[in-house]
Amino acid sequence: MHFAQIYVPGLAHCSYVLGSGDKCVVVDPARKIKPYLDKAESFGMDIVGILETHLHADFVSGHMDLAEQTGAEIYAPEIAHCSFSHTALKDGDEFTIGSLRFKLLETPGHTPDCAVYVVTDLERGEEPVMVFSGDTLLVGDVGRPDLFPDQEEALAEKLFDSLKKLKDLPDHVEVYPAHGMGSLCGRSLSAKLWSTIGIEKKQNYALKRTDLAAFKEDLLTDMPPAPDHFARCSEINRQGPEQLAHLEPVKPLDVAQVQEGIDLGHVVLDTRSYLAFAAGHIPNSYSISLEGNLATFAGWVIPPEKDILLVLEQERDLPRVADALYSVGLDHISGYLQGGIVQWINAGAKTVHVEPVTVDEIQSYIDSNETVVLDNRAKSEWKDGQISGTTLAPTPDVRHRHTEWDVEKPIVTFCNTSNRSMTAASILKQKGFKKVMNFLGGTTAWKAAGYEIEPREEA
Amino acid sequence: MHFAQIYVPGLAHCSYVLGSGDKCVVVDPARKIKPYLDKAESFGMDIVGILETHLHADFVSGHMDLAEQTGAEIYAPEIAHCSFSHTALKDGDEFTIGSLRFKLLETPGHTPDCAVYVVTDLERGEEPVMVFSGDTLLVGDVGRPDLFPDQEEALAEKLFDSLKKLKDLPDHVEVYPAHGMGSLCGRSLSAKLWSTIGIEKKQNYALKRTDLAAFKEDLLTDMPPAPDHFARCSEINRQGPEQLAHLEPVKPLDVAQVQEGIDLGHVVLDTRSYLAFAAGHIPNSYSISLEGNLATFAGWVIPPEKDILLVLEQERDLPRVADALYSVGLDHISGYLQGGIVQWINAGAKTVHVEPVTVDEIQSYIDSNETVVLDNRAKSEWKDGQISGTTLAPTPDVRHRHTEWDVEKPIVTFCNTSNRSMTAASILKQKGFKKVMNFLGGTTAWKAAGYEIEPREEA
Amino acid sequence: MHFAQIYVPGLAHCSYVLGSGDKCVVVDPARKIKPYLDKAESFGMDIVGILETHLHADFVSGHMDLAEQTGAEIYAPEIAHCSFSHTALKDGDEFTIGSLRFKLLETPGHTPDCAVYVVTDLERGEEPVMVFSGDTLLVGDVGRPDLFPDQEEALAEKLFDSLKKLKDLPDHVEVYPAHGMGSLCGRSLSAKLWSTIGIEKKQNYALKRTDLAAFKEDLLTDMPPAPDHFARCSEINRQGPEQLAHLEPVKPLDVAQVQEGIDLGHVVLDTRSYLAFAAGHIPNSYSISLEGNLATFAGWVIPPEKDILLVLEQERDLPRVADALYSVGLDHISGYLQGGIVQWINAGAKTVHVEPVTVDEIQSYIDSNETVVLDNRAKSEWKDGQISGTTLAPTPDVRHRHTEWDVEKPIVTFCNTSNRSMTAASILKQKGFKKVMNFLGGTTAWKAAGYEIEPREEA
Amino acid sequence: MHFAQIYVPGLAHCSYVLGSGDKCVVVDPARKIKPYLDKAESFGMDIVGILETHLHADFVSGHMDLAEQTGAEIYAPEIAHCSFSHTALKDGDEFTIGSLRFKLLETPGHTPDCAVYVVTDLERGEEPVMVFSGDTLLVGDVGRPDLFPDQEEALAEKLFDSLKKLKDLPDHVEVYPAHGMGSLCGRSLSAKLWSTIGIEKKQNYALKRTDLAAFKEDLLTDMPPAPDHFARCSEINRQGPEQLAHLEPVKPLDVAQVQEGIDLGHVVLDTRSYLAFAAGHIPNSYSISLEGNLATFAGWVIPPEKDILLVLEQERDLPRVADALYSVGLDHISGYLQGGIVQWINAGAKTVHVEPVTVDEIQSYIDSNETVVLDNRAKSEWKDGQISGTTLAPTPDVRHRHTEWDVEKPIVTFCNTSNRSMTAASILKQKGFKKVMNFLGGTTAWKAAGYEIEPREEA
Repeated sequence: MHFAQIYVPGLAHCSYVLGSGDKCVVVDPARKIKPYLDKAESFGMDIVGILETHLHADFVSGHMDLAEQTGAEIYAPEIAHCSFSHTALKDGDEFTIGSLRFKLLETPGHTPDCAVYVVTDLERGEEPVMVFSGDTLLVGDVGRPDLFPDQEEALAEKLFDSLKKLKDLPDHVEVYPAHGMGSLCGRSLSAKLWSTIGIEKKQNYALKRTDLAAFKEDLLTDMPPAPDHFARCSEINRQGPEQLAHLEPVKPLDVAQVQEGIDLGHVVLDTRSYLAFAAGHIPNSYSISLEGNLATFAGWVIPPEKDILLVLEQERDLPRVADALYSVGLDHISGYLQGGIVQWINAGAKTVHVEPVTVDEIQSYIDSNETVVLDNRAKSEWKDGQISGTTLAPTPDVRHRHTEWDVEKPIVTFCNTSNRSMTAASILKQKGFKKVMNFLGGTTAWKAAGYEIEPREEA
Repeated sequence: MHFAQIYVPGLAHCSYVLGSGDKCVVVDPARKIKPYLDKAESFGMDIVGILETHLHADFVSGHMDLAEQTGAEIYAPEIAHCSFSHTALKDGDEFTIGSLRFKLLETPGHTPDCAVYVVTDLERGEEPVMVFSGDTLLVGDVGRPDLFPDQEEALAEKLFDSLKKLKDLPDHVEVYPAHGMGSLCGRSLSAKLWSTIGIEKKQNYALKRTDLAAFKEDLLTDMPPAPDHFARCSEINRQGPEQLAHLEPVKPLDVAQVQEGIDLGHVVLDTRSYLAFAAGHIPNSYSISLEGNLATFAGWVIPPEKDILLVLEQERDLPRVADALYSVGLDHISGYLQGGIVQWINAGAKTVHVEPVTVDEIQSYIDSNETVVLDNRAKSEWKDGQISGTTLAPTPDVRHRHTEWDVEKPIVTFCNTSNRSMTAASILKQKGFKKVMNFLGGTTAWKAAGYEIEPREEA
Repeated sequence: MHFAQIYVPGLAHCSYVLGSGDKCVVVDPARKIKPYLDKAESFGMDIVGILETHLHADFVSGHMDLAEQTGAEIYAPEIAHCSFSHTALKDGDEFTIGSLRFKLLETPGHTPDCAVYVVTDLERGEEPVMVFSGDTLLVGDVGRPDLFPDQEEALAEKLFDSLKKLKDLPDHVEVYPAHGMGSLCGRSLSAKLWSTIGIEKKQNYALKRTDLAAFKEDLLTDMPPAPDHFARCSEINRQGPEQLAHLEPVKPLDVAQVQEGIDLGHVVLDTRSYLAFAAGHIPNSYSISLEGNLATFAGWVIPPEKDILLVLEQERDLPRVADALYSVGLDHISGYLQGGIVQWINAGAKTVHVEPVTVDEIQSYIDSNETVVLDNRAKSEWKDGQISGTTLAPTPDVRHRHTEWDVEKPIVTFCNTSNRSMTAASILKQKGFKKVMNFLGGTTAWKAAGYEIEPREEA
Repeated sequence: MHFAQIYVPGLAHCSYVLGSGDKCVVVDPARKIKPYLDKAESFGMDIVGILETHLHADFVSGHMDLAEQTGAEIYAPEIAHCSFSHTALKDGDEFTIGSLRFKLLETPGHTPDCAVYVVTDLERGEEPVMVFSGDTLLVGDVGRPDLFPDQEEALAEKLFDSLKKLKDLPDHVEVYPAHGMGSLCGRSLSAKLWSTIGIEKKQNYALKRTDLAAFKEDLLTDMPPAPDHFARCSEINRQGPEQLAHLEPVKPLDVAQVQEGIDLGHVVLDTRSYLAFAAGHIPNSYSISLEGNLATFAGWVIPPEKDILLVLEQERDLPRVADALYSVGLDHISGYLQGGIVQWINAGAKTVHVEPVTVDEIQSYIDSNETVVLDNRAKSEWKDGQISGTTLAPTPDVRHRHTEWDVEKPIVTFCNTSNRSMTAASILKQKGFKKVMNFLGGTTAWKAAGYEIEPREEA
């Protein structure tokens, strides 16, 4: 048996290549499929199967590209009702590739279409040895059941039952989930990217619950918000996404072409560092730095129907930026500004900026009645420790909550670095705020400078 | 907990980085330490501990380089009697780094100094979650107890007892060994590079044995030969190897300088493809292709006291070749032939060659009484299938067994590709054989061409 | 004025980018146009003109690709009668780009369509400062007038007159030719890649001739042979070659697909080192090593109507190999053998080989009546020094002259390295010679080993 | 004859490799010598001579490194009085390497120690074919004689005489100077990097002057300022600079170590883009962007006796930054801030910023009596066109002229991009200016936006 986990950092996504003899399968592939092709080649194996555990909500999957390029069969749970050509499996269905026997167990809960694959290596024995647990069982966590607000109670109950199927597996079975720490598909995922049934039974809060009510209380309280693209990506994955290989290469554009795109209603996405963005950017740009969590935040805040114009730190960033956007289904990139922002500035075109506020200056803004100071971190981080006198406003919420504050008043944003708060600042500028400032380094700088931060229950 | 396995392909060696908070340890580092430094940096952690499970026999370890560059403490079993500065641990000794508790268990058997580290992640619970099992417990195998021929009975018995300690761990405990498939530290290691106690208890032939006699029979029969460097590397590791950072860079040499080196008794190691070697090489060179198993075969057949002159396919191969030699303690590389073999040829210096024999010609040589045809594969491969009329002579054995054949008679070598058989051919030429030939593609070509190959018990 | 010479080593071809203000022209572009685009970008200039001095015979030009990608106008001599859209210039015609004035002078002789461009930089003065002399005036040589055998007398006379036009330019004028040392467009080109009119008038044998008869004697005696593709490329350039950007990427092929191609009549081109080729290659392959003069020899000996299957040393050689073939109009590359020759061998497919002969063995073959020893160098090299007892047979001639020798007799090839002689050896094997050998290192090894070599007048 | 010009963009410096047979010389090497070693290897030649035309003022030369690594002899004018081991040549002295004859002509003027080398290629003829004209004769210009203010009259007169020696060379002789456009060793150097004697005699303003008084008027009026390092580098070159190969690698430093260095009086050099610098930087840093003219401005404004701490855009910039500093003799780099400015910010350490002013805002600052607006371009650029209402203050002058302005008043800097003006802004902040702003894009943006700019004679 040859086995490899392929981890996609921007999405905290785990995918797998597993094979025996000269054949292998890929489990839950990311949209960029080259790593799977390379790994299979290094194993000396052909990819003959593509296993989807469920319709991923947080990224667009590479099953169509991979099937097209390898001729492999796609396997998916029947309950996912996929539109593309595939082998639909029901609870208990089995198939064998080489010496490997795969058995699907339906495990609805995280979403209605979730399943897991239990694997037996017939070369070594009849006992199951691993389970691809998708978003059902994660290391230290389970897949959140609240993505469909009107079904969350029902899904939480289903999840409770589905986890029993996993608890019934022997302790020695290895657990390979679809996500690790950083994913919004759960709340407290471990940085360790795999585990065993026995460890999780003993150490995972959700598996330890035997009482349904308490389980539901755990699972439906204080969940992090679900990004906007979660519903969108599921549906794209069900239909079968456009193949990456069919997309046009992203074109270089000169200043006039970028201006033309803006006039046509395209949005500008600026992926430079937050400092460079602060000092000068195209009006109405979105700041989402490549150094931050580009894929998730772009999927979350960029309107998916819009064409995207890119401003890059340097041209060589393009492949990474495009991959991040494609990974969340933002396929319409109309081009990038050739020569970067310096071309725009030198062309005499208009720029705007965000004023930096340093750690030794922020207290005076907090103390001022004239200034609003927004904490753009997630609620969970905020609960763990706050800067007194600031207002919780997670970055994505700023899109809707901006009316709470006066556009005429100075407004300062911060997070734990400055990536998310610069995204928030860029949104506030789009909304007409006259004086937008950013607290450089946010809570990280605040704590390092020795100022006080305390966990609190209420805002 | 952050965790990564770092796999070193040439040695089929597994090493690990494991950390919690801002500190991590490295387990069983290879001599080239950059991957550990990089991984720790990507984790945002400092390396504070270096854990040696035992004195590795098959490679030179990077513990001295790593300790020097990071200031980390080296931990090793007391029973290994290491000469360098370290924390010596006895059976049951524990220490804690961040939230991770490590407990050493003495597990002599593979070698007298073997131990394992059992890890508990106090952040998640009190149960042990993983064991760094060194060469004691491998996936599908155990560390061979026969490396010290005069102690093999005693060591096999100790191993039998040591394994009980591992069987006493809970089924859910993850098993991280120091080697995978391809290592000569065992006989039947899996390509899958980790496992669990539960799986191994059920599926590992050695753990399933409850009878000591049968266990010994299993473990002391038909072991693959142990390369010559195994004893050497253990001792180097005990002393603490020379730091790689202190070695001189390998120098380019012109034809005259190479000739001078040869005259002084240096050996020539030619790492080009077997085809290029066949057509022309410096007399008395060793052929060990970079495409084959360079580290192991160089460690095995190159006399360790000799300075080494390199002939490379291309200059950019140098770092990979040097790393492979250093990994088995061959530190004395006096230089490489600049411009490669073409410079040697164009200088009018003497070359010799090995004649190719193709798959459609080999039968006539087998049938001829005038020609000896040697199968240079390992005995285990030979047992799985032989070409009738050929003589088993594993490559390293050719160094001693060459007197069995007549130097005046044509002699043909083959293996399963042509890498090892070209090494054998190069040794035969050193020994004075007049007409040395190589069967291109060996058993792989033979089988692909549809000829018969059969497993047999006796030669 | 910004100016750069772009040199293409495989073709010994010189091309140029020259600009002023924000506009530039490219003179005599090679087919691979990226270097021109990059250089113009580094100058901060747009390419607005493409100047062809004549219909190049030795390579396929990039004028169509460059015009398509930049929108630049193509300028060419009217006497070239080009089919593609262009500005046709007559003797004395001028045009100005930025501060640069270009004047075409018709200079037939090397070919009937040759011209040069005289450049004045109006920013600095009214005197001409440089001339793009195409293949009319080279450094230390002039363009050979013998490529059209039936017109060679007439062309030599025209060349004599055309050179007068160049001699009439002031001494200070810089001379930028289309070729340097190694080109077969002349006989004795300098390695220095530009010159001045004054230097050439004093030091160039052809410009020093004032007597037509002597000039013709010089120019029509002992010219090197013209490769087969010279006539072909001129015509391709006249029509306007297929754009490189429109060609399909070269596909990886497995052993079965390569065999299929061979069965369909495709030719196999093996670009590995001559040593690797010698030890084993696909029957009927052409050996033309990437280390040798691949573009010219492929253009010369590969039948242009055939599809080409590639055997590469390593996959990363593909772009260089493909560029070389495209540069001489060999556009039909049906694929390359994935995994290289080892895949072929391991598949049990048939290989053949060429026997190496070393410098200490060659004399015995020369002395033997049974063996033919062929010198595959050019006649000019042979005149400069021969190995006694060998037969001059330049590599391309072997295609036709093979009937002179007995296929049953052993035959040895050599040149000054072993690249060309391995090409010759590969052709002899195609022609049915039973035992083909190659003298490794040829005359270079011979001389280095201290053997005698003497210039002689007659074969 | 093999010949190559090696151009060093940051210094607008031209150096050369010239050889014949198997030997070559390097003329006026830059401090980073790898390009010469590579070029000589590509020529198949050994470097046997290093020719210095004079003691370069604008960069530190690589003669010592090159001599050490190749064993080549250094040739220099006797009038330079060099301290290191070399062959000192007097006016008219000749030496021959291969077929190349070199003749030194003393040509004081630019500096007292200037010389040129006239080259004859004996293989082709007895006429001189090229001259390495150092800083005596440049393309379109001559070396400025005003670097030693107390000798400028005398040096201008010597230069007048020295140029006669060059005018005496034949028109056809190629001219290879030590500098091109962008160098401050002259005033109006061409972007074309070589020429001929004939062209220069006809088109070079200085060679056309036959009247000494007019020549002096030309040469001593309106010269650009000479950077501070010019005197320093000459002396370093005379002594023989420290070998680059002997310098320690530049170390990564954490925030505490950088703070420690600052406390010890080290200076901080920030080479990030001007935008990133504007938004946040370490107090008292120098901003000199790697995108601008780092070598010259660092040599000019960084106090040479200080240790330097680097803040980089990204770690991979380090080699380019270090090379630039070494090229002007700034060898004392104590380290770089690992992780860049984000580490500094996140550590809660103090940062300051420069406020951006956009092209649509600048006029209001110019109109305000409260604000000073400084034009930091060179006087020559300023003469070519000014923005009305601004004050000429070339960046290096700001170091001394800052007392002219009130530290309490807002001050805006600009140049033709924003690189030099951000250097000026960083100096003003060091001098205690309270509110420093930068006009993004400067005159380039101003002109592109359609505003008026006019050449004027007086400020």
